[in-house]
Amino acid sequence: MDPSDWQESPLRLEDLRGELIRQEVTILFAFIERAQFARNDAIYEAGRIPIAGYSGSFFEYMLEQTERAHALAGRYMSCDEHAFSGGLPEPLVSGERYPTPIRPNDINANAAIRSGYFERVLPELVEPGDDRNYGSSATCDILCLQVLSRRVHYGKHIAEAKFQAEREAYGVLIERGDAAGLEQQLIDKTVERGVLERVREKAAIYGSEPGLPGACRVSPEAAARLFEDFIIPRTIEVEVDYLLGRLG
Amino acid sequence: MDPSDWQESPLRLEDLRGELIRQEVTILFAFIERAQFARNDAIYEAGRIPIAGYSGSFFEYMLEQTERAHALAGRYMSCDEHAFSGGLPEPLVSGERYPTPIRPNDINANAAIRSGYFERVLPELVEPGDDRNYGSSATCDILCLQVLSRRVHYGKHIAEAKFQAEREAYGVLIERGDAAGLEQQLIDKTVERGVLERVREKAAIYGSEPGLPGACRVSPEAAARLFEDFIIPRTIEVEVDYLLGRLG
Repeated sequence: MDPSDWQESPLRLEDLRGELIRQEVTILFAFIERAQFARNDAIYEAGRIPIAGYSGSFFEYMLEQTERAHALAGRYMSCDEHAFSGGLPEPLVSGERYPTPIRPNDINANAAIRSGYFERVLPELVEPGDDRNYGSSATCDILCLQVLSRRVHYGKHIAEAKFQAEREAYGVLIERGDAAGLEQQLIDKTVERGVLERVREKAAIYGSEPGLPGACRVSPEAAARLFEDFIIPRTIEVEVDYLLGRLG
Repeated sequence: MDPSDWQESPLRLEDLRGELIRQEVTILFAFIERAQFARNDAIYEAGRIPIAGYSGSFFEYMLEQTERAHALAGRYMSCDEHAFSGGLPEPLVSGERYPTPIRPNDINANAAIRSGYFERVLPELVEPGDDRNYGSSATCDILCLQVLSRRVHYGKHIAEAKFQAEREAYGVLIERGDAAGLEQQLIDKTVERGVLERVREKAAIYGSEPGLPGACRVSPEAAARLFEDFIIPRTIEVEVDYLLGRLG
């Protein structure tokens, strides 16, 4: 879609809130699922698990194959979805296209999401070791990456809604190309504390296992930390990038 | 693997219990994830969403593509995993093969799991309607089917452990080919009541949303009913089938 053909339509922050809360649940479920397996380093090392005609890691192979399947089925036609792999096939699915509520753009933060997932998230979720659950671990990693990507890129919607609510304040900062100013304008510490509180509470609930009192598969503090230092900052970066291109 | 090359190794019911309890959580998470979207009948009707060079439904297409990716990565080399689609490619992954704890067999209950999912499970999870979340709904359906399949086919492990614990009683029934007798021998109403109680409790916990008191995305009664009338009976069928071939 050509950005010049785009028609703005009203987007309100209150209407996005339910989706954000839902995504927190999906993220925590994905984290808890991954946490049941060991780290399984073998799946991340190129060539360690031999794959005919492929030189990358087992995880990489599964990610590419999964995204290939989803690309054919049209997943990345949606403005909410962003692929990690390059060179994916064109979708075979056709159908009506719906108007997009955000300005068309090619912002893709998946490189940062992917490296952050392996550096920050995975070490909080799993114990070192090898339990040979390679396929299950990779499937869970892919799900974690996909839901993190969805949540971080949802920042585009949030930024569009915030822009519509305060055109003047954002307009000045955008005209100036003031990324630091936009970041300051976007951050709302009160809302953020609410998110962290909710994440802590949800991790405690969803991580509990009736019959095993006290078991928490992902510690509430670790879950809140991942939102605080990783998910929220990456989301703000996407919001800033989106706004910098909003008037172009 | 040729069944005649198989070496029995000890399998104890107590050691399988943790895996069964974990699978209940995974199943409930998958149900709750699907429950956030509408029924979206369009994805199940052949030709309704046009796919170049394909005449089936969108759901079918996504299932086949997903299983194709997983087959290449070796998912169905494991005795725990069973595909829904036919004509899948050979795995490209190679690696050490581990001894299987169950007798090699070609029992695959996925046809019954699939029809039961659409007839019994899905109507309990979703509201009729179309919210255009086609890709997400199909992805969740596939996850639900995969985790249900894993749990039902885990009956092979359960049956093997029960057989090893009571060789004589099972041996007589197997020699006679007495399917009804085996079913009676396998069913343990006390254990089953425990499972249903745990599922009810977990559905209430995992379905709750802090800040929305009383919200239950999948009703605890519906979840328990699905285990009672669908998941447990299909598991018992697999156990009976496995035992009938145990001594051959």
